Amino acid sequence: MAEFDLIALIRSRAAASAGSMPGSGEGVVLGIGDDAALLRMPAGHELVVTADTLNEGVHFPAGTAPADIGWKALAVNLSDLASMGARPAWCTLSLSLPREDAGWVSAFVDGFQELAAMHGIALVGGDTTRGPLSIAVTAMGWVECGAALRRDRARPGDDVWVSGTLGDAAASLALDGHVPPASGEPLPAVDPAIAAWLGDRLRRPLPRVAAGRALMGLAHACVDVSDGLLADLGHVCERSGVGAEVWLERLPASVALQRAFGARRTSFQATGGDDYELCFTAPANLREPVSLALEQAGVEATRIGRIVAGEGVRALAADGTQWRSPQSGYVHFG
Amino acid sequence: MAEFDLIALIRSRAAASAGSMPGSGEGVVLGIGDDAALLRMPAGHELVVTADTLNEGVHFPAGTAPADIGWKALAVNLSDLASMGARPAWCTLSLSLPREDAGWVSAFVDGFQELAAMHGIALVGGDTTRGPLSIAVTAMGWVECGAALRRDRARPGDDVWVSGTLGDAAASLALDGHVPPASGEPLPAVDPAIAAWLGDRLRRPLPRVAAGRALMGLAHACVDVSDGLLADLGHVCERSGVGAEVWLERLPASVALQRAFGARRTSFQATGGDDYELCFTAPANLREPVSLALEQAGVEATRIGRIVAGEGVRALAADGTQWRSPQSGYVHFG
Repeated sequence: MAEFDLIALIRSRAAASAGSMPGSGEGVVLGIGDDAALLRMPAGHELVVTADTLNEGVHFPAGTAPADIGWKALAVNLSDLASMGARPAWCTLSLSLPREDAGWVSAFVDGFQELAAMHGIALVGGDTTRGPLSIAVTAMGWVECGAALRRDRARPGDDVWVSGTLGDAAASLALDGHVPPASGEPLPAVDPAIAAWLGDRLRRPLPRVAAGRALMGLAHACVDVSDGLLADLGHVCERSGVGAEVWLERLPASVALQRAFGARRTSFQATGGDDYELCFTAPANLREPVSLALEQAGVEATRIGRIVAGEGVRALAADGTQWRSPQSGYVHFG
Repeated sequence: MAEFDLIALIRSRAAASAGSMPGSGEGVVLGIGDDAALLRMPAGHELVVTADTLNEGVHFPAGTAPADIGWKALAVNLSDLASMGARPAWCTLSLSLPREDAGWVSAFVDGFQELAAMHGIALVGGDTTRGPLSIAVTAMGWVECGAALRRDRARPGDDVWVSGTLGDAAASLALDGHVPPASGEPLPAVDPAIAAWLGDRLRRPLPRVAAGRALMGLAHACVDVSDGLLADLGHVCERSGVGAEVWLERLPASVALQRAFGARRTSFQATGGDDYELCFTAPANLREPVSLALEQAGVEATRIGRIVAGEGVRALAADGTQWRSPQSGYVHFG
C-alpha cells in the first residue's frame, strides 16, 4: 500500500464524517487533496493554533488499540483549544507508521473521527510516512478577537478552580504497571470494573471544549491539566507573575479513584497529569456564574485554591502544612 | 534537560529571529508559551495550511547535519505554500528526539530559523517529545480570497512549465549510495565539487515562494515537485480531468547534473523527486509574461510540455517515442 492509498483511505473517511454534525467542515474552501488546504475564518476572530504529538512507548504503550490512539491524539489537541476558549475548526494529521497496515489505519481513523465529529473539527491535511509509530496533530480553532483565555491573566485574590475530577488517568497508569507506585507501597487490589473505568479516562479523555467556551468573560486565566495540576498551575503563576495556594483535600476525585486508592489518591490528583481537565482562575465575586456556566457545559467545577501575590504553587494539606509530592509532574525528558 | 528547557531554547531562538526581516511575526498576538498561539489574518484572505514530516532513515540518513534537517523540514512545507501562491506566515514544529541534546537542538534551530527568516515565517508553537528522530511541521500562510493556485485548474491547450532545474537531488542520493542507480550501470566518477553542489540541492532546497506569488493570475494549475515530475504532474492531471505530454529533452538540467550524468540524467529529472521546484500550467498566450514573472522572482522557467484532453502523463523522448522509466516516483510505502 502506497502513501497515496493510505491518504485516500483517510480522505474518504474524513469526507464521510464532514457535515455529520452542524458546523463540521465550516470554512473549508479546499480540503485534503491539493498541496495545502484553503480555509476561511469568520471576521472578527483570531486563529488559535496548537500542536501536540503522541509517540508509541512514550505517550501510550505498544499494543494500545488504534481507535484509542486516534481519539487521544485529537483529544490532547482539542484540550489545548478548550483551554483558550476556542471553537475547534480544522486540523492536520502527520502519521508515521512502521508498516503499511490499512486495518490499523482504518481503526485509528475511527477513533479520531468519532471525537472529531463530536466537536465539528474537520481534518484538512497532513501526510503519512514510514517510521516508528508517531502521531503529530496540529489543531486550529477560532476565538473572538481579544477574548481568548490565556495563562498570563491570573490576579491575586482570584479563586482557583478545576473542572471534572483529577487523578483517574495517573491511577490507571499505575494500576497497569506503567509508572511506579507513588510511595513504594504495593498497589491495592482493584475491582476490574473500576480499573476499566479509570482506563477509559486515560485512553479516551473528554476535552472540555464547551467548558472553555462557557468560561469566556468569566475566567481570568486558564490552562489544561496535562503535565499535572501543580505543574500546570505553576505555568499560570509564572506567566501571570503571581503565586497560588492549593487545598489538597478539596481536589475533586471520582468515585472510582476514591474506591481504588482511598487516601492514597492525592499524588495522582496533584501531580499525575494526563487529566485534560481545565484549571482556571476567576474573581471571587463570580463564584455563582462560574458554577452555573460549567454546569450548563455538562461538567462540575470545584474551587481548589486561590491566587496570591508572590510566586510558586504551595500545596496545603488539611492541617495547613505544606505538602511534598513523592512524584513530580510528568516530564518528557529525564 | 526537561521538555521545558528545550522549548525555552527553541522559544528564545524563535523570538530572537522574529522581526529580523520585514513581515516576520506579523499577525502574532500570542506566540510560544501558552496552550495555543493566537494569530490574526488580514481581511480578504484565505488561510493556507500544509503539514509534512521528515523521519530519520526515511527522508534523510542518520548522521545528517542537524542544521540541514532543520532547513529541509521547513523547506518542504514552504514549498507546498509556494505551490498555492501563498505568502508564508506561521508554523508549528513537533520535534521527537531520542536524546536530550541541547547542542543538536541548537544547530537544528539554526538551520530552521535561517530559512524561516528568509521567508518571514514565525514559529508560533509545537512540542518536543522523546522518541525516534522525527520532525513534523505544519505551515500556514495567506492568499487573496479565490486566487490560490490549485492542482485542479489545468485545461487542454495549456503549456506545462517547470521552475529551476530537475534531478539534482535524486542524482545526489544516487551518488551517496542511498538509492540504486537507475539502470544497473555503475555510477560515474564525479568531481567532488560537483557532488557537493548536487548535495546542497538535496539538503538545502530553495522553496519557490516568490515564484508562486509571481504566478498568481498567470498560472492555471500548480504543484510542487516532491514525488517526481511525472508523478506530481500526474496529480494535476487527475485532479483537473486532463492528460499531459512531457518532452523529456526539454527538462531543464543544471550544469552539475549534465557534467555528472550526461545523457543518463533523464530518469533523475523525470521521476527522481525531492526537487521542490514548481510545475505549473498556463495558457499559451501568456508565455512572455510567465517567463518575465519568474525571471523577476529569481528563477528560470522552462516550457516542458502541454496539457491535452484525456488522462495520464505521456513522457516523450526526442524521437517522439514514449519513454518508460527504469525508476518510479518516490513512494513512501512499498
